[in-house]
Amino acid sequence: MTRKIGIIGDGHVGSTVAHYIVANGFADDLVLIDKNEAKVNADALDFEKAMPNLPFHTNIIVNDYAALEDADVIISALGNVRLNDNADNDRFAELPFTSKNVKEVAAKIRDAGFNGIIIAITNPVDVITQLYQEITGLPKAHVIGTGTLLDSARMKRAVAKKLNIDARSVSGYNLGEHGNSQFTAWSTVRALDQPLEELAQIRKLDLQEIDQDARNGGFVVFKGKGYTNYGVATAAVRLANIVLSDARTELPVSNYREDYGVYLSYPVVVGREGVVEKVDLNLTNEEKAKLQDSADFIKSNFKKYSK
Amino acid sequence: MTRKIGIIGDGHVGSTVAHYIVANGFADDLVLIDKNEAKVNADALDFEKAMPNLPFHTNIIVNDYAALEDADVIISALGNVRLNDNADNDRFAELPFTSKNVKEVAAKIRDAGFNGIIIAITNPVDVITQLYQEITGLPKAHVIGTGTLLDSARMKRAVAKKLNIDARSVSGYNLGEHGNSQFTAWSTVRALDQPLEELAQIRKLDLQEIDQDARNGGFVVFKGKGYTNYGVATAAVRLANIVLSDARTELPVSNYREDYGVYLSYPVVVGREGVVEKVDLNLTNEEKAKLQDSADFIKSNFKKYSK
Amino acid sequence: MTRKIGIIGDGHVGSTVAHYIVANGFADDLVLIDKNEAKVNADALDFEKAMPNLPFHTNIIVNDYAALEDADVIISALGNVRLNDNADNDRFAELPFTSKNVKEVAAKIRDAGFNGIIIAITNPVDVITQLYQEITGLPKAHVIGTGTLLDSARMKRAVAKKLNIDARSVSGYNLGEHGNSQFTAWSTVRALDQPLEELAQIRKLDLQEIDQDARNGGFVVFKGKGYTNYGVATAAVRLANIVLSDARTELPVSNYREDYGVYLSYPVVVGREGVVEKVDLNLTNEEKAKLQDSADFIKSNFKKYSK
Amino acid sequence: MTRKIGIIGDGHVGSTVAHYIVANGFADDLVLIDKNEAKVNADALDFEKAMPNLPFHTNIIVNDYAALEDADVIISALGNVRLNDNADNDRFAELPFTSKNVKEVAAKIRDAGFNGIIIAITNPVDVITQLYQEITGLPKAHVIGTGTLLDSARMKRAVAKKLNIDARSVSGYNLGEHGNSQFTAWSTVRALDQPLEELAQIRKLDLQEIDQDARNGGFVVFKGKGYTNYGVATAAVRLANIVLSDARTELPVSNYREDYGVYLSYPVVVGREGVVEKVDLNLTNEEKAKLQDSADFIKSNFKKYSK
Repeated sequence: MTRKIGIIGDGHVGSTVAHYIVANGFADDLVLIDKNEAKVNADALDFEKAMPNLPFHTNIIVNDYAALEDADVIISALGNVRLNDNADNDRFAELPFTSKNVKEVAAKIRDAGFNGIIIAITNPVDVITQLYQEITGLPKAHVIGTGTLLDSARMKRAVAKKLNIDARSVSGYNLGEHGNSQFTAWSTVRALDQPLEELAQIRKLDLQEIDQDARNGGFVVFKGKGYTNYGVATAAVRLANIVLSDARTELPVSNYREDYGVYLSYPVVVGREGVVEKVDLNLTNEEKAKLQDSADFIKSNFKKYSK
Repeated sequence: MTRKIGIIGDGHVGSTVAHYIVANGFADDLVLIDKNEAKVNADALDFEKAMPNLPFHTNIIVNDYAALEDADVIISALGNVRLNDNADNDRFAELPFTSKNVKEVAAKIRDAGFNGIIIAITNPVDVITQLYQEITGLPKAHVIGTGTLLDSARMKRAVAKKLNIDARSVSGYNLGEHGNSQFTAWSTVRALDQPLEELAQIRKLDLQEIDQDARNGGFVVFKGKGYTNYGVATAAVRLANIVLSDARTELPVSNYREDYGVYLSYPVVVGREGVVEKVDLNLTNEEKAKLQDSADFIKSNFKKYSK
Repeated sequence: MTRKIGIIGDGHVGSTVAHYIVANGFADDLVLIDKNEAKVNADALDFEKAMPNLPFHTNIIVNDYAALEDADVIISALGNVRLNDNADNDRFAELPFTSKNVKEVAAKIRDAGFNGIIIAITNPVDVITQLYQEITGLPKAHVIGTGTLLDSARMKRAVAKKLNIDARSVSGYNLGEHGNSQFTAWSTVRALDQPLEELAQIRKLDLQEIDQDARNGGFVVFKGKGYTNYGVATAAVRLANIVLSDARTELPVSNYREDYGVYLSYPVVVGREGVVEKVDLNLTNEEKAKLQDSADFIKSNFKKYSK
Repeated sequence: MTRKIGIIGDGHVGSTVAHYIVANGFADDLVLIDKNEAKVNADALDFEKAMPNLPFHTNIIVNDYAALEDADVIISALGNVRLNDNADNDRFAELPFTSKNVKEVAAKIRDAGFNGIIIAITNPVDVITQLYQEITGLPKAHVIGTGTLLDSARMKRAVAKKLNIDARSVSGYNLGEHGNSQFTAWSTVRALDQPLEELAQIRKLDLQEIDQDARNGGFVVFKGKGYTNYGVATAAVRLANIVLSDARTELPVSNYREDYGVYLSYPVVVGREGVVEKVDLNLTNEEKAKLQDSADFIKSNFKKYSK
C-alpha cells in the first residue's frame, strides 16, 4: 500500500539517505527519527522546501515511532558521528557510545509493532545488526547490515581505477567484519573476464596495494571531511530498493551465519523477505582463516558490549 | 558533446548539489573545485565509492579550472558556511568574507575561457551574481542567481501546508533581494484557481503569518542544523537542468533588470542562453515600492563591497 | 507494503503505460491483464528481457485478477484500439465495443476485492469511468478518468509553441467531455503571468487557432500512426504516482460532479484517497454553457450505453 | 554542450527508444528521422503532449539530417518491422529490404558531417553495423551494434528464472551473430558465485533447455505481438548512456574483430570513444568453433548483400 521507509538517526549519513530517497521519489512515506529535535525538524523542513523544485512528492513524518508500525524498511543510521573521537580508526570505539542508543531504539521499534526489514548502517555494524535482531525479535533473515557492501564498492573502485574501466564491471567481495578485520576475498574478484589474481600477473598489478587502497578508502574520506556519507548512504538505499521491489539480488551484506554463530558480511540473495537465499563461496584456506578471525573478533566484542 | 557541470565550493551546499547530480546522472563530467583540497578529494572519493551501487556513471574532476573551459554550467556554492557567524540573519554579513573569494574565482573562470551559464548560490546572491558577471565579462543573460527561487519554494510550501495541497499546486513569486528585504508578491500568488488574497478571505488565512513562516523558513533550518542545503541545492540543480535542456521555463531567479540597474529576483524565462525572455508583472504599488527598496538595498551594498 | 499497480488492457496505451512504469521502477508489483494471452505474455517477456539492462526490478504478474486484491491503483487502458474503425473522430463510436468489456472487467475487479483507486483511460472516458464506479461500487472519489488532463497538456503545448516557452510554464484547463465537446476554458489559462486572453491581444495570438490546434492534436497523432499513446500514458502514470505518494496535486481529471450529475473533467485535488478536494472555477457564462452542453452529451450517452 | 541523440527509424523499436529517452530526460536534443513523415511527426507531437506531465524537457527535431552533425550518438532502428514477413525467424531475410535503406541513410549521416558514435539495432545487425562503418568511414571503434547484448539479457533472464534470483545477479555472454547462429558461451556464465556449468549439475538444471529458452525468447515475443521492442530498446539506450557518460563498461556488443575479419558480438569495454578496449575470453574449443561458424555465416552474407 505504497512504500514506507523509516530512518533512525539524522546525522551525516541519515540525512544523506533521506535526501537521496526524497530526491528520487523512492518512498511515499518517510519517517525521520532523531533525538536532536531541532536538527531533524530542520532537515524535514529543508526537504519540504526542496519539493516545489522536485518532480516527486514524499510525506515526511518526524519523530513518531508509532508511524513505523507499517513501514516496509527501517534504515538505522544512528551514531556514526561518534567516529569523530576515533583516532585509531577502530569502529569498535563507537560501540560503548552507540550500543545504549541502539538498545533503546530497537525496543521502541519492537514496541511499535514493526514487522518489516531492518537495514543497519550504524557501526560497528555487525554487532549492531545482531543487537537489533535480538532486541526486536524479528527473524534473523529480516535484519541485515550494509556491512562490506561498501568495502566491496571501495575494492571495485580501486580495481577499476587501475584497469581504467567502470567499477560496475568488476565483480567480487570483501568479507567479514565491516571494520579493520575485513578483507578482499581475491579468489572471488573478476574483471575483464578473468580472475583478478591472474589478470594482476599479466598487467603487473599489486593486489596488496589495491587492497590497501580499498581498506584505507573510508579513512581517507573520514580524514578529509570528518565523516563518510555518500558511499554508505547509496549502498543502504540500494538495499532498501532491492527489498521493496523483491529484486532477489546477490550482494554482500552483514547477515547471520549459523556456521560462524555471528553476523558478518558474506554474499546472500536479498529480497522482500530480507535474506532469501544463502550463498557458499569456494574460498581459499587463507581466506577462510581470515574470515574466522574476523568472526571471532566480532563475537568477542558482541559479548563485551551487548550486555 | 555530453553534459559538463562545474561546482565551485564544496561546503554543505556544493557537496549536496554534487551528490544530487551524481545520484541522478544529470551530468557526464563534473568538475569540483574547493580550496580545501582534503575535503573536495574526500567527497570525490566518496562519490566514486557510491557509483558501484548507482545506475549512473559520472566523471569527476577535482580542482582543475582549465577543465571548466567547455563546461555548460558552473554552479557557484562558495562561502555559504560563513552564515555560521551570522547572529542577526543578515546575508550581507557574509559579503566581506566571500567577495574576495568570488573575485578570485570569477577571474579564474574567465581565464579558463568558460563560455557557458553561471548559476550563483553564494550569498548575498544578488551582489555576488553581479560580481560574477562583471568580472567574467559574460553577457548579463548568462549569469543568474538562485535568488528567490528558494524563497518562492518556501512560500509555496507555507501556503500549501495551510491548504493541505501539493506545494507545486501553488503558483506565484517572492521577489527582490534573496535576503531580509525579499517579499511575497501576493498579487501573483494563486492556489485552487483563485488569487490567494481572495482565497485567504474565504478560508480565513492570515497572509502575514504565512509570509512570516516563509520568511523565517531559512533561518529555522539554519538554526536547527547550522546551515541550509537541500532546498537551495535542489533549486540550483533544477535551474542547471533547465539550462542544459533549453526548457525555456519561467521562474524567479536573480537576473539583471535594466529598470532597477541591479541584479535582483524577478521571474524570467530560462533556457540554454540563460535569461531568454523578460517577464513583466502587474504588481501593486505597494509591491513596487518594496521591490524598489530591495533594489536600493542591494545597490548600496554592491557599491560598498564590490571594490 | 510496496507499490502495486494493475493495468487492464495491453494495447498501444496499456503497454506504453507498463513500459514507462517498468523503466522507471515506479511500481514493485505490476499486474498486466489482457484477453489476448499471446500479446500480454509477449510484453511481459519483453519487459523481463529489458530488466538486465535496467536499474530497477519489477515483478510482473500476468492475467491474474486475484492479484489485484491488494493493488494500490488500477489503470484501465482497455479498448482504445477500436478508434481504428472510427472515421469521424467520435470517441463515442467506441462505446458499444468497449462498454461490454468494461462491464466484465469491472465485475472481476469488484469480485477480486480491490479496494484502491481506479484510473480510467478507456474511451469514451467519462462514461467508462462512471461505469467502473457503478459496477465496482467503489466510492466515487476513488474512481477517476484521465479525461482532459491530456487535452490540457495539448492546449499547454499549443500555447507554449506560440510563445516559445516551456509548456509547463502555461497553466489552465480544458474542461468537460474528453471528446468532441471538450473546450479550453480560456478564462483559466495563464502564461507569462498574464491571463492568456489579455496576452493574446498584446501578442496578436489567435486563440481559436490555438484551440483548434489543441482540439485536433489527438487526431493528428491518430492519423499519423493509427493510435495515440505517449501523451495519455504519461498523464495516467503521473496520476498514479500522485495517488501513490498522496501528493494532493490539483489537476483536471474526469470526476463525478454532483452539480452535473455525471463524470466529466474539471480540476480537483488528487491524493491517496483519489479526489480529496473539489475546486470551483470562476468560469464565464459562455464557458458554463459549454460545460453544461458537454455534461448533457455525456449523460445522454451514458443512459444509452450503460444498460 | 548538452546531449544530442539521433534516432533513425521510427517504427516499434525507434519510437520506444525515443520514448524511453524523453521520459527520462536522457538527451537534451533528440533528432527523429523516418521516411514516413506522418508517423514520425505524430510521435514527435505525442512526445510533446507528454512533456507537460513529465519532469524533463527534450527538444525534438524531425527529419533534419543536418541536425545530426553535432550529435553525440546515432541509434539506427531502421527496418525492424520487416520481420513481419519473416516466417522462418531468419534475420537475414530482412537484409535485402534494409541494406538499400541503410546505404542511403549512412551516406546522409556521413554527408551531415557526423563524428560521434553509431549504435545499430537494425537487423541483421552485424552486417548492418559493418555497412554503417564502411559507408560513413567512421573509425571501426565508433560504430557498434546492440548484437547479443539482448541475447545475453535473454540468457540471464532464463537462468535467473530457474534459480529464482535477479537476472542482474547472473553474469556471462551470448556470442557471435545476433541471429540463429548466436550461442550462449556457458564457460563464461556464472551465478551464485559458481560457474553455471557446475551449478547446473548440483541443481539439476538442463542448460540446453535454458539455452533454447534464451534462443527462442525473441521469437516468442515476436509471435505474440508481431515485433520485439522493449528489450532491445532498453539495451540500445543503456549503450547510449554508457557512451555519453564515458562509463567504460564491459558488455557484449557487435564490434569489429580483426581475428574474424567481421563484426560480431563479443565483449568489449565501451566508453565515449565507442569500443575503448578489447577483451579476450578463455572459450572452450567447442565455443571457438561455434564462434567461427557464426563469423563465417555473417561474412558470407555481408559479401552477398553489401554490394
